[in-house]
Amino acid sequence: MTLRLGVVGTGAIGQDHIKRITRKTSGARVVAVNDINLDVARAFVAAENIDARVEASTAELIGATDVDAVLVASWGPAHEEQVLACIAAGKPVFCEKPLATTAVGARRIVDAEMRHGRQLVQVGFMRRYDAGYRALKKVVDDGTIGAPLMVHCTHRNPAVPTQYVGDMGITDTFIHEIDTLRWLLDDDYVSAQVIEPRRTRHVHEGLHDPIIVLLETRKGIRIDCEVFVACRFGYDIQCQVVGEDGAANLPDPASVPLRLAGRASTEILMDWKQRFIDSYDVELQEWIDSTRQGQVHGPSAWDGYFASVTADACIEARHARKIVPISIADRPAFYDNKR
Amino acid sequence: MTLRLGVVGTGAIGQDHIKRITRKTSGARVVAVNDINLDVARAFVAAENIDARVEASTAELIGATDVDAVLVASWGPAHEEQVLACIAAGKPVFCEKPLATTAVGARRIVDAEMRHGRQLVQVGFMRRYDAGYRALKKVVDDGTIGAPLMVHCTHRNPAVPTQYVGDMGITDTFIHEIDTLRWLLDDDYVSAQVIEPRRTRHVHEGLHDPIIVLLETRKGIRIDCEVFVACRFGYDIQCQVVGEDGAANLPDPASVPLRLAGRASTEILMDWKQRFIDSYDVELQEWIDSTRQGQVHGPSAWDGYFASVTADACIEARHARKIVPISIADRPAFYDNKR
Amino acid sequence: MTLRLGVVGTGAIGQDHIKRITRKTSGARVVAVNDINLDVARAFVAAENIDARVEASTAELIGATDVDAVLVASWGPAHEEQVLACIAAGKPVFCEKPLATTAVGARRIVDAEMRHGRQLVQVGFMRRYDAGYRALKKVVDDGTIGAPLMVHCTHRNPAVPTQYVGDMGITDTFIHEIDTLRWLLDDDYVSAQVIEPRRTRHVHEGLHDPIIVLLETRKGIRIDCEVFVACRFGYDIQCQVVGEDGAANLPDPASVPLRLAGRASTEILMDWKQRFIDSYDVELQEWIDSTRQGQVHGPSAWDGYFASVTADACIEARHARKIVPISIADRPAFYDNKR
Amino acid sequence: MTLRLGVVGTGAIGQDHIKRITRKTSGARVVAVNDINLDVARAFVAAENIDARVEASTAELIGATDVDAVLVASWGPAHEEQVLACIAAGKPVFCEKPLATTAVGARRIVDAEMRHGRQLVQVGFMRRYDAGYRALKKVVDDGTIGAPLMVHCTHRNPAVPTQYVGDMGITDTFIHEIDTLRWLLDDDYVSAQVIEPRRTRHVHEGLHDPIIVLLETRKGIRIDCEVFVACRFGYDIQCQVVGEDGAANLPDPASVPLRLAGRASTEILMDWKQRFIDSYDVELQEWIDSTRQGQVHGPSAWDGYFASVTADACIEARHARKIVPISIADRPAFYDNKR
Repeated sequence: MTLRLGVVGTGAIGQDHIKRITRKTSGARVVAVNDINLDVARAFVAAENIDARVEASTAELIGATDVDAVLVASWGPAHEEQVLACIAAGKPVFCEKPLATTAVGARRIVDAEMRHGRQLVQVGFMRRYDAGYRALKKVVDDGTIGAPLMVHCTHRNPAVPTQYVGDMGITDTFIHEIDTLRWLLDDDYVSAQVIEPRRTRHVHEGLHDPIIVLLETRKGIRIDCEVFVACRFGYDIQCQVVGEDGAANLPDPASVPLRLAGRASTEILMDWKQRFIDSYDVELQEWIDSTRQGQVHGPSAWDGYFASVTADACIEARHARKIVPISIADRPAFYDNKR
Repeated sequence: MTLRLGVVGTGAIGQDHIKRITRKTSGARVVAVNDINLDVARAFVAAENIDARVEASTAELIGATDVDAVLVASWGPAHEEQVLACIAAGKPVFCEKPLATTAVGARRIVDAEMRHGRQLVQVGFMRRYDAGYRALKKVVDDGTIGAPLMVHCTHRNPAVPTQYVGDMGITDTFIHEIDTLRWLLDDDYVSAQVIEPRRTRHVHEGLHDPIIVLLETRKGIRIDCEVFVACRFGYDIQCQVVGEDGAANLPDPASVPLRLAGRASTEILMDWKQRFIDSYDVELQEWIDSTRQGQVHGPSAWDGYFASVTADACIEARHARKIVPISIADRPAFYDNKR
Repeated sequence: MTLRLGVVGTGAIGQDHIKRITRKTSGARVVAVNDINLDVARAFVAAENIDARVEASTAELIGATDVDAVLVASWGPAHEEQVLACIAAGKPVFCEKPLATTAVGARRIVDAEMRHGRQLVQVGFMRRYDAGYRALKKVVDDGTIGAPLMVHCTHRNPAVPTQYVGDMGITDTFIHEIDTLRWLLDDDYVSAQVIEPRRTRHVHEGLHDPIIVLLETRKGIRIDCEVFVACRFGYDIQCQVVGEDGAANLPDPASVPLRLAGRASTEILMDWKQRFIDSYDVELQEWIDSTRQGQVHGPSAWDGYFASVTADACIEARHARKIVPISIADRPAFYDNKR
Repeated sequence: MTLRLGVVGTGAIGQDHIKRITRKTSGARVVAVNDINLDVARAFVAAENIDARVEASTAELIGATDVDAVLVASWGPAHEEQVLACIAAGKPVFCEKPLATTAVGARRIVDAEMRHGRQLVQVGFMRRYDAGYRALKKVVDDGTIGAPLMVHCTHRNPAVPTQYVGDMGITDTFIHEIDTLRWLLDDDYVSAQVIEPRRTRHVHEGLHDPIIVLLETRKGIRIDCEVFVACRFGYDIQCQVVGEDGAANLPDPASVPLRLAGRASTEILMDWKQRFIDSYDVELQEWIDSTRQGQVHGPSAWDGYFASVTADACIEARHARKIVPISIADRPAFYDNKR
């Protein structure tokens, strides 16, 4: 009955997920773990008193007969191969972002999964599990604001480390909006444009910050998103959907309103880790529940592939300074949501 | 046509009113001024280039044939005598708070005015002219929230000077709520109670701060008001009316919402002078307009008298630590609002 | 290792708790249940596929050797006897509100527990586990707003059923503030007063609504709480703590801001069940965790007793229309929080 | 001393201005009026008891020796000729929007004014006088949020009449942002782009609504503005300036917060006339004051010309579906703000 999990990768996110499964969710337990550094894996299960064995290799973990499903939390470049191995073994797999480091790689996963004949892969886009985004989606789906016409977003971070460079504003930051807004609007993208405003002086060399990304959807909805990762003032995720009858916003996280020193204020989180922390719990619980039913309800390999293609288009649009069409085949019926 | 005004008192508030009448309102001009210190009066009209003569005495100013109406902005203890002189002269008079320093004195003015046979006196309770309070009153009067049942208020000041002592929290601060809430609710008070919470250490000796004042109205509406004059964080005037169907709040003054350093904030004014500054303009313009029509539309001598009686009851309630009834005759028909 | 629970009472709240323990929390499982109506208990475990036996009597359930701890969710009048039975059996017990229907009864539990020599009893005051109240308590405890001086609260409900009558505004509604504010302020009450404003016409006979409850604490903090259970507009729980340096509010639940039909708005919950629903999960998880450590971290029998004494004083104050002192012995060292 | 004004045009806006000058501002009076329909002008001065003569022609009004300055409130196509006549007569002129119906026409006014050798022309962009925009500008100028990088705006109207068609979203609506943002940022525009989202079904034929306008400034600041004139839910003017250190918003107009029927809400104005009504009073008072000093402090002919050129670029960008550079000579030193 209980889902027996193997976890690949015992770095920060892997450790969080293992603790989450052990202490906060029900219906699954971790029976085996693996890491590129076996000592790290061993030290972690010992320190946290996790009742799981350390497998010598990823292949052995994926192949173990008592491992019903796999959670991939290794580093990005290893994801594609590990997910493909899970598909080959016919095992459900939850793969952290990114599904693959290239659109071509993501497409290989889609193809392998379709050949296998049954959905096995879920990608770790956790925002779909955030209570705020879900409440916003409910308002949009209810028709409360009429048909959506525009979406205005911001994805702000107070600061980023110096290794955050180049197009990471798109691949590591905006990638969340790419997936979330497709899901929120139940729509696909057809073109991308990227604008580079005046650069903040508060950012290291090698990064142009902020940028504004513009997306157009198949239905004609227009999205603009400010991506500003050295904004200094907070991790500030905003999203307003403007429809034919009204507008709806993503709620801000609840915080204690203060009246102090001439200001009435609420908190803006400075630490992104706090912003969606509850959504990880929900994400894993729902993945466990659907996996036990032999289904995939969350972001699919197709969603991961689409996100990858869109990110590539944004990068091209940025460097070419023009509007770039997003050409992608229609979603195969295989990925229709059957729920 | 133009209303010719005499102004008694050229201290801070008197100067503000004279400048207001000269530069911001229409329909009146100041033709004569007087002050206990004639040099101050002379220096002011010269410095500000006001085309008004300085009268040697208050009596001469009030009696001058070219003075149609009088604005009293002298110090409080002089008000009663000056207002009585205006009534004796049959001239409309706008008197700054307080109408008199005692309830008995205020009653003498009421009696003199009634003997005179026509309303002449308006008291400077400017909050009735504040756009926010007027909007709140409109909501209450419209029936939007149903019949009012309770009112929750705060009257907070960041700090007060050391000469602010004893019961000034009632006579100088809460006095504004006393008048405003009677007007807002169109009701009278029947009892008062005062509670002394734990004292803030941020206040000088000779003052117990904060206090909470509880009033009961004839209709049974219950009012609680926190009076906290050394609250440090701002001049914070709040008022929520709770009715049978909903609740309505006094709007906060508009301010620029900021997102800065981990906080989303708006300003709370630190300087009380800014909070109702616009209401003085409206107050004087409407007084000029109604005076030109031979009427009194604003707070009457009766209102000033009622405020004084209520303040006395609050002080008694505070010192006796009990609920004190507010006994006052019914409002004479003379003061029915005929508009 | 896993805590084996017996649950007394399989009505609405009991069912919720059993499902919660089975599907949402970790570290405990329900092994036995009992209800005054055994058919209800049997039907529930069958329908929900709960792997627990139905015990024929409460005594058998409490005495069962495989029951490590007991959760009492029966109707109120049965609580005292059942909790005393748990103490007699030396078993940890989580008891839903009220601990007993009288202060005397609650005191009997306190005495029995002290005689037993170790804390066993936790009372189901779930607001202490609400994320908003915890965030507010953190701000208060941090000293951000300085020493607390006053607390302004509202406890509003859109409507109540006709069986809600008499003093239930105190015993069933304000009882939550009684416990929460003692915990929030880390203080005890010394007097109570109840004010009856004008009655809303939207309430059935047999109930005077709203009321305002005033409490004074040992430190001199003054609390005012509007209890308005037929307010029509929402389940609206407000709490503002005013300190020497600033004020802090209980956050409102997050909701999607809408711009629609000339209004910018957020939701006020109409259903009280939604307001603290998450806090039940936290409450039970923390009770399970501390019980496994042999400790009681939550609201104690003493807290339940103090709440009962305070509610009695409020009722007396209401009917006598006077300020009633709350006389209670000092908290026994037995109940000192040792964490 | 008093400024004697001639007003051209006694339609709605002209009447409002005349009443404003007569009843609300000080320092000026209307001595002569003219309208294309003399009967309208005569009826208005009679009905409102305005002490001004009706001139038979605009030329006679402008030329009248007792007319010190002119206020042009006729219909748009007449503005250019009337303003040029005022310049020819050497008289200060306040001209309502638009300064001219074409950029070429506006340029003719600039050239004539420069030839004349002294600034005479002010254009009626009233938003610069709005208390909210001024507070926002103060925050930006103070450096509170650091150097501006981006501006996000909305200009929403609940509905427009059927004669509102084609590019009026730019020429009649967005024109306000064009002027206001140049002033707010103290910057000029270098390129424009217009995006057409999915069209709302709530708008008549002949209008594509909404649109999004993107402007780039000389300093590299990027502006995006949603122009949505059939948004149904309100006249909703938003403006957020994002700087290197923080973000600042235009304050919403104050309104009474309501708690009613499950919603906490504030008003969004439905009538655009109310939104900036106070700014007209300030605009005229300041124009009167500066005109009496022989200066022009407000929006200049150059500003009107720049707005016109920018609007033309937006229209071209929209129809060409491309980014259009805005080429305009540097501001002549003649128009440097000398205050």
